[in-house]
Amino acid sequence: MSKVTCDIAMSVDGFVAGPNQRLDEPIGDGGDLLHRWMFEEAEANAEVIESITDAGAFIMGRNMFTAGRGDWDLEWKGYWGEEPPYHAPVFVLTHHPREPVPREGGTTFHFVTDGIESALGRARDAAGDRNVAICGGAQTVNQYLAAGLLDELRLHIAPVVFGAGARLFEGVGDIGLEQTAVSRSDLVTHVTYRVTPSRG
Amino acid sequence: MSKVTCDIAMSVDGFVAGPNQRLDEPIGDGGDLLHRWMFEEAEANAEVIESITDAGAFIMGRNMFTAGRGDWDLEWKGYWGEEPPYHAPVFVLTHHPREPVPREGGTTFHFVTDGIESALGRARDAAGDRNVAICGGAQTVNQYLAAGLLDELRLHIAPVVFGAGARLFEGVGDIGLEQTAVSRSDLVTHVTYRVTPSRG
Repeated sequence: MSKVTCDIAMSVDGFVAGPNQRLDEPIGDGGDLLHRWMFEEAEANAEVIESITDAGAFIMGRNMFTAGRGDWDLEWKGYWGEEPPYHAPVFVLTHHPREPVPREGGTTFHFVTDGIESALGRARDAAGDRNVAICGGAQTVNQYLAAGLLDELRLHIAPVVFGAGARLFEGVGDIGLEQTAVSRSDLVTHVTYRVTPSRG
Repeated sequence: MSKVTCDIAMSVDGFVAGPNQRLDEPIGDGGDLLHRWMFEEAEANAEVIESITDAGAFIMGRNMFTAGRGDWDLEWKGYWGEEPPYHAPVFVLTHHPREPVPREGGTTFHFVTDGIESALGRARDAAGDRNVAICGGAQTVNQYLAAGLLDELRLHIAPVVFGAGARLFEGVGDIGLEQTAVSRSDLVTHVTYRVTPSRG
């Protein structure tokens, strides 16, 4: 049975982006500190890094596609360059209809205007028996958590305190978590949770 | 060289007590879910549990001593029963002077009215070459973090989401963390951080 998963890097005080998110710093001030383990300890974290893009389809919020650009700019190709790392359909949640944007290497961005359940339905269809991965950002992940649609949350907890920014778990209501796996390198603790409907 | 340490259990969304803290539920609604690992997996966590009280002196906030009772009640012996688990001097931060309260097993509660640095000085004197442990709650730990007086933070991250409560790291400003150890059982992930003056 395929799962709906989410890999997301979080500061130890619960933020998945630092303060002052903007175009040239879409993950906010210091946001790069969340991802040091991916770059500085790539070898130690190779398995985790590979699993992040091991899905049959992806879903992301609009800001994660545009990296903070306000309105659609038809010239703008998105944050992800010529060959995004997904190699699969990516469904972007937005209020603005737009034609799909095919990129090299098998990634095509599709734009979904009728909500998170519709996006998930389309992603499931595209993924077949592979997983669907929710990419972020905070608001998107929180919406899927609140709706009870996420099966597995894979937190990558970085040793950094932001004090402000985009908070994970905000407004998700009563959800339950079962810790299923823990691993680490020097710059991160990886914790995988199975998400259940309530902590009951 | 002795250290100033803090062991504290935290929900994955950053709370060290749940909402609605009150006398009969001093760690708030659902707060017991933070500590299931101590009771239900005591054997697997024996080493961690033992290390929590392995210090020469302790510091706690007033609410942690009174468990939420407002004013001093001279009959009230504190939350910790006849024989508290500390077996050492415990310095309680308060605005209300009070004579020390000796308990069985070597624990004496002392009441410090002139601030966190004074309490730490007295605790260091009492501890000699052993560590000083900050017990909590959130406000006390945050004050020591903000003042740069904590050397080692040992987070015990429980698989629970509170959504509200007493938040760790609130107002601590620019601190740095170096992750030095990670371990786990089914109901908790233990992460030890060395605290540095800024994330630099």
